[in-house]
Amino acid sequence: MTHSTAAATATFSRTRDLFDLPEGVIYLDGNSLGALPRGVKARMAEVVATQWGEGLIRSWNTHDWIDLPGRVGNRVARLIGAAPGTVTVADSTSINLFKVLVTALRLRPGRKVILSEKHNFPTDAYIAAGVAELLGAGHELRLVEAAELSGAINEDVAVLMLTEVNYRTGARHDMAALTRAAQAAGALTIWDLCHSAGAVPVDLGGAGADFAVGCGYKYLNGGPGAPAFVYVAPDHLEGLSQPLTGWLGHAAPFSFAETYRPAQGIAAMRVGTPPILSMSALDAALDAFEGIDLGEVKAQADQLFERFTGIVGEEAPELVLATPVDPSKRGTQVSLRHPEAYAVMQALIARGVIGDFREPDIMRFGLTPLYVGLDDVERAARILGEVIRTGAWGRPEFRQRAKVV
Amino acid sequence: MTHSTAAATATFSRTRDLFDLPEGVIYLDGNSLGALPRGVKARMAEVVATQWGEGLIRSWNTHDWIDLPGRVGNRVARLIGAAPGTVTVADSTSINLFKVLVTALRLRPGRKVILSEKHNFPTDAYIAAGVAELLGAGHELRLVEAAELSGAINEDVAVLMLTEVNYRTGARHDMAALTRAAQAAGALTIWDLCHSAGAVPVDLGGAGADFAVGCGYKYLNGGPGAPAFVYVAPDHLEGLSQPLTGWLGHAAPFSFAETYRPAQGIAAMRVGTPPILSMSALDAALDAFEGIDLGEVKAQADQLFERFTGIVGEEAPELVLATPVDPSKRGTQVSLRHPEAYAVMQALIARGVIGDFREPDIMRFGLTPLYVGLDDVERAARILGEVIRTGAWGRPEFRQRAKVV
Repeated sequence: MTHSTAAATATFSRTRDLFDLPEGVIYLDGNSLGALPRGVKARMAEVVATQWGEGLIRSWNTHDWIDLPGRVGNRVARLIGAAPGTVTVADSTSINLFKVLVTALRLRPGRKVILSEKHNFPTDAYIAAGVAELLGAGHELRLVEAAELSGAINEDVAVLMLTEVNYRTGARHDMAALTRAAQAAGALTIWDLCHSAGAVPVDLGGAGADFAVGCGYKYLNGGPGAPAFVYVAPDHLEGLSQPLTGWLGHAAPFSFAETYRPAQGIAAMRVGTPPILSMSALDAALDAFEGIDLGEVKAQADQLFERFTGIVGEEAPELVLATPVDPSKRGTQVSLRHPEAYAVMQALIARGVIGDFREPDIMRFGLTPLYVGLDDVERAARILGEVIRTGAWGRPEFRQRAKVV
Repeated sequence: MTHSTAAATATFSRTRDLFDLPEGVIYLDGNSLGALPRGVKARMAEVVATQWGEGLIRSWNTHDWIDLPGRVGNRVARLIGAAPGTVTVADSTSINLFKVLVTALRLRPGRKVILSEKHNFPTDAYIAAGVAELLGAGHELRLVEAAELSGAINEDVAVLMLTEVNYRTGARHDMAALTRAAQAAGALTIWDLCHSAGAVPVDLGGAGADFAVGCGYKYLNGGPGAPAFVYVAPDHLEGLSQPLTGWLGHAAPFSFAETYRPAQGIAAMRVGTPPILSMSALDAALDAFEGIDLGEVKAQADQLFERFTGIVGEEAPELVLATPVDPSKRGTQVSLRHPEAYAVMQALIARGVIGDFREPDIMRFGLTPLYVGLDDVERAARILGEVIRTGAWGRPEFRQRAKVV
């Protein structure tokens, strides 16, 4: 077993102090909802009491609320290999996906197919199917198995839409290679970075990706339902237009002109008034990434992965690893299969180890070095071993499905 | 001059204590951003530290975050004459408008025209034009003067889309009459309630309106960029579908099924993960409306209107009233014209009277009885008189346009 370097130990022991976690909890669900960065509390109190309560409407100027989407967008940009001015925070992942899908299809008017993979996160497929239905005229969402993607890229394909890191298995696509393959066939690419941003080093610019979207509430720790982000490659910023033509995407929103004229650049991806409270929480949360290199985060997550799966392999050998062992082929979660995965996870949660469950048989454990250490995953793995060995998950209450799983 | 009744005085002196307003400020811009309800501070601190920080992912169940959009929607429903289960909070006004426009056009497949008025809030026209462009096939946004609306409703019109209370003048449409006229011609109606909800008694059910949208950050006091709401009449809930088919509008979001199947009822209007922080602020803000009758709010706002315009008429007779004097034909703002309206407003703001400006020559003053009293509007009117009489607005710095006006 390898050990993390002294430098990494110092880095992540510093970042752990930036988070508030409850006593007695090992939190391995940052892939679903990131933990609370301590600084968010003070920032929210300040935004509510001072910026809103005292500043009132004046804060659109005095606290520059109006450019908050671009400022926070630029902070996200650094984490995903995007140039300043190519990312804005806005809306939800689903809605941003709608914008870039329609934009991409308009850039490839002769092509009708949105290509994606069968096991993509459902909302991506739902939104894409909705776009195809809305545009009609032969537009189609085509879903294939991951292994068949390269072969399915042909001259009918307008856009290849993929989630870089799979939400169930943690498997990671080769963004650069698939982007090259798509573009070689004349198609555009859209990357969903929900399970990548803040977890692994993403290089949108280097890969030449056309568009990307992602959420703020997983590895970016922006809080429940934090606003999402959208990236548009520099090449597509000139003359950019998208179908949700709301006033804050207008070139001059306060001219109150009768006709829509899109803003220059990434601002054209904005729609309505930005949610300042939620967006400020995301902004404060991003402080935890200051001075942090994502390569270092991924390397440390790989250490956590090795430690966790090593102990699980010894203590609960009947669990099946669903995540690739090759570090370059995965993100930073571990997924384990068990026929009663839901009940096992409930038994774990009852013991203070919080991960989550995905249909039909997957337990997910998010490995987030900013606030999860080697000691945490070691204890979690031993508790998991004990739950499996003792059959502690067999109690009826652990099979009762909650509304949200 | 009439005076408010003792009952109203008691009601609104109680509600004023529910708001935090800065010393020395008379806040007449609740039509743009509502003031801070005191309870929001404690609620936000609790949501951040306890629900998110301690509860983490578990709070989707333990604090029932998943149904927050519907719970807050039902609280808004009471304020706009809508039945429980017909309103959800979601996204922004612009995005909700997109959803209901496409839904309405799908319900009237033979008709191609979205009818609206020229002086509607720009985002409504922009979104509608975007929808017409996206759907193509002859779809069209037709804008006419308000006085020509009735005559323009013909059998080409699929949907009449109007903002009940005009953002610039405060003039109020007759929702019931226009809805009847539209429906008599076979068209549907969409009402934008941004300047109505929380200001005037709205009766969507009684008027038989088909769809409505509105924002949470004006008279509902939900905070900057608070989430918006959307209403669908009971008749249209059965089989409801909309084009932004995100996972949280799915009938079983946590089944992670490959194919989209819309949720029953208003939940089909949801798209992505709800912004819990911003939505909780809106929820807490709505406490101020508990036990409040909107008829009483409007009656009190009419008292404020009379007092304010009465004094302005004496002290600054050159200002031109742009708002209808008939209380039934207006909302709860006063709009005054002046050729140098921007500079006059800046001079007022420098003196602690906060209203706002709209192109080209309008000063807006929001009359919000929940936190604005007769003494406030009296002082504001006298200060306005002084600014006009002394020409205090003539200083060059008052003409410097800020980024956000």
